[in-house]
Amino acid sequence: MSESGFLHDVGKIVGANGLIVDKQQMRPYLTDWRGLETGTALAVVRPTTTEQVSEVLKIASANGVAVVPQGGNTGLAYATVNQSASPSILLSMSRMNAVRAVDRVGMTMHVEAGCVLLAAKQAALAVGRQLPISLASEGSAQIGGVIAANAGGVNVVRHGMARDHVLGLEVVLADGTVVGGLRALRKDNAGYNWSQWFIGAEGTLGVVTAAILRLSPLPRHTVVAMMSVPSSQAALDLLALVQDELGDTIVAFELLADASLALVETHFGLKRPIAAAPWHVLIEAQSSVNGLREAFEVALAKAFESGLAQDGVLAESETQALNLWALREHITEAEQREGPSAKHDVSVPISSVPAFLERAQAAVAREIPGARFNPFGHLGDGNIHFNVLLPQGQLAKTANEIVHALVIDMGGSVSAEHGIGRYRRDALRQMRSPAELGLMGGLKKLLDPLGQMNPGAVLSSPQSDAGRRG
Amino acid sequence: MSESGFLHDVGKIVGANGLIVDKQQMRPYLTDWRGLETGTALAVVRPTTTEQVSEVLKIASANGVAVVPQGGNTGLAYATVNQSASPSILLSMSRMNAVRAVDRVGMTMHVEAGCVLLAAKQAALAVGRQLPISLASEGSAQIGGVIAANAGGVNVVRHGMARDHVLGLEVVLADGTVVGGLRALRKDNAGYNWSQWFIGAEGTLGVVTAAILRLSPLPRHTVVAMMSVPSSQAALDLLALVQDELGDTIVAFELLADASLALVETHFGLKRPIAAAPWHVLIEAQSSVNGLREAFEVALAKAFESGLAQDGVLAESETQALNLWALREHITEAEQREGPSAKHDVSVPISSVPAFLERAQAAVAREIPGARFNPFGHLGDGNIHFNVLLPQGQLAKTANEIVHALVIDMGGSVSAEHGIGRYRRDALRQMRSPAELGLMGGLKKLLDPLGQMNPGAVLSSPQSDAGRRG
Repeated sequence: MSESGFLHDVGKIVGANGLIVDKQQMRPYLTDWRGLETGTALAVVRPTTTEQVSEVLKIASANGVAVVPQGGNTGLAYATVNQSASPSILLSMSRMNAVRAVDRVGMTMHVEAGCVLLAAKQAALAVGRQLPISLASEGSAQIGGVIAANAGGVNVVRHGMARDHVLGLEVVLADGTVVGGLRALRKDNAGYNWSQWFIGAEGTLGVVTAAILRLSPLPRHTVVAMMSVPSSQAALDLLALVQDELGDTIVAFELLADASLALVETHFGLKRPIAAAPWHVLIEAQSSVNGLREAFEVALAKAFESGLAQDGVLAESETQALNLWALREHITEAEQREGPSAKHDVSVPISSVPAFLERAQAAVAREIPGARFNPFGHLGDGNIHFNVLLPQGQLAKTANEIVHALVIDMGGSVSAEHGIGRYRRDALRQMRSPAELGLMGGLKKLLDPLGQMNPGAVLSSPQSDAGRRG
Repeated sequence: MSESGFLHDVGKIVGANGLIVDKQQMRPYLTDWRGLETGTALAVVRPTTTEQVSEVLKIASANGVAVVPQGGNTGLAYATVNQSASPSILLSMSRMNAVRAVDRVGMTMHVEAGCVLLAAKQAALAVGRQLPISLASEGSAQIGGVIAANAGGVNVVRHGMARDHVLGLEVVLADGTVVGGLRALRKDNAGYNWSQWFIGAEGTLGVVTAAILRLSPLPRHTVVAMMSVPSSQAALDLLALVQDELGDTIVAFELLADASLALVETHFGLKRPIAAAPWHVLIEAQSSVNGLREAFEVALAKAFESGLAQDGVLAESETQALNLWALREHITEAEQREGPSAKHDVSVPISSVPAFLERAQAAVAREIPGARFNPFGHLGDGNIHFNVLLPQGQLAKTANEIVHALVIDMGGSVSAEHGIGRYRRDALRQMRSPAELGLMGGLKKLLDPLGQMNPGAVLSSPQSDAGRRG
């Protein structure tokens, strides 16, 4: 079939509003969230039903057209735009955005893939429950993408990754087969849990069209504090102390370099509310039980006594709490304004974070004179965004190589929460054994034998590699 | 190779202590936990290292000998003994039982598959952390089996299934390939998370040899209460009330029929500590924050005011708490002593539990005059053991069929936590669509092309069916 004949047939399935072929209109879909890379597509296709997704995938498959699913296009690994030589369509899920049902007592939610994360969270709050996935991009990120990326965020220390919130999925396979698993069951040990295969697969195995998510009770009390600590080891010891004292009330435990706060002050005028110190931690605790604040104060006092903390501030109001969080949330953009940087999304065993920070700074400083450091992130998960501010003319590549080699050497991951996408395929091959890559390649071939789902993302294929070289 | 030649070679790998061929000594391994069924094996093979597992699987594969992995043999779905016509060995993991490492701050544990669950839990407690998987069989169940079964238990409402505690696995595939994924990382979005494929696969895709488990902080306060409620709907409303009032401090929310407590009194002399009522609930809450008990008392008062609870007792000591739990824990054995029963391990959406209970009792009573009911279980997970005490001469089959048909009709699962094994293969085919079974069969064929891993469990094969008929 000709390209125009194919697009005509796609248009018949999704309707005129569902098909974008105008280059100008396609541009936002085909541009990476960071604005650094662009891709190609014959069209942007915007289905409104699972049946439409199935029909589109069927004729795409029959015509040798690849399919790249896209949610809110907020990913940071360049997973949602085709760069291969394969002709492709970009499948935008944004019109399938309904919250189909929320069950307060059963604590489940049935949502379509294109539902924006924030809308899903608000629907949970409306019945007095929470969907505790908290991302900077939650106003744009869509549930399907959150699942395909196995998104993390700031509450993983308590609530886990996106995977931990998925009870069941509906997916459409490359050949158009709809596989339904939208069961609102907390326990369901009936055969292999195939939903798990698609979580974190970044759209390379099929398209997630809908999900049943697990909700959580809503806590009644929240405490937010920021503390100055003398070293990253002290920050780690403080983590152990609050685990001992406050248990699983800890929902966030973030590490911030003093340099991170300095950047935020320089570019946004937000001053650090506590004494300068090599490192700071931002802690949030939640509970349904009265007495959280008192327990937190006890823990704080112990931290001061033992020298783990040098200064600290406990938010006295919701506004103060938001202001403390604002310091954390402005780091990425402050870094952006400061100049070019090498970004990393790495994890190591939590106990190894201090050693990692020390070794990484030493190694980068040795190879890149003039490099400055902006390390921050989720210490409670061992996930550090070890970002390096680069001297003029210095490319990110060297810093990436040094940091990634060290992370792999320390048993860590160079993609803690952002995924592999098209940015980190080479790193994946370094991190995983031939046996592991064999399993991944086997599943890919099983579910997508023609290699038409999101070609070039996660796993390389001769086709997609050719595309990148061409 | 001859059978004796094969066993000779296996013996060379695992040593004399690792090979059992004596029929008498093999019997406990080849007998189902319930003592109802037995299987066959050429030998029981007890490796001590992953390398031995790999070598054994290699020569088994080369000789067309099936491999049935077994942990503590505490499963309730008959998943760990071969009944097919294939010659097989039973691979007992019990000698690979080390706790290799416990990381208090990182809250991870590295264990071998044969480590008994209770030993793993104690190793976590020894460093002030917990592994919150609570099973009646935890003194015998082994970690590898817990993972292969995706075990549930009484704390799922708060802590999730076994799957939620696994960070990484090491597995050996049917052909002897060792796949290592023992990474102690909370976040690791690097390619497909193949560990997930093996969780709940009941040993049909490979052998789990070791795992990295996620630990949790240890709560400082525990409250246990039992309450009488007028109806199962009131029990459900009470669940919503405690979710509102006490949030995720709720670690167990168990439903008990008055008949269940009557059986426990009859056979064990344990009296119910509260007024008789149609239903009772047993609730456990935990927190690190002082004030849990006061919050619980407030919730209890609200439950009385609103008529959701008629009577209640809050444990005043650890002994009283254990006594309340003893009532719950003796139900299964009391039922056993009462006589033959049809057992069910079903789940429905939590909100549908009252409707399920009503419909199931009516349907069974209609078809089986004289049937009595012993429904109890994990209301907080929608998982009810809807057991039916059978009149003399009545087989379980009819009750099973009625209950399973209803559960499937209500969007539930006939295997909430016990798994499919060899008992529920037919039910699996009723519960899952051809598309879903196609995915499962595809993965099985990908990882075990010769069908030698635990043949006849979970998925049928012509070979294993022939075995059952033969």
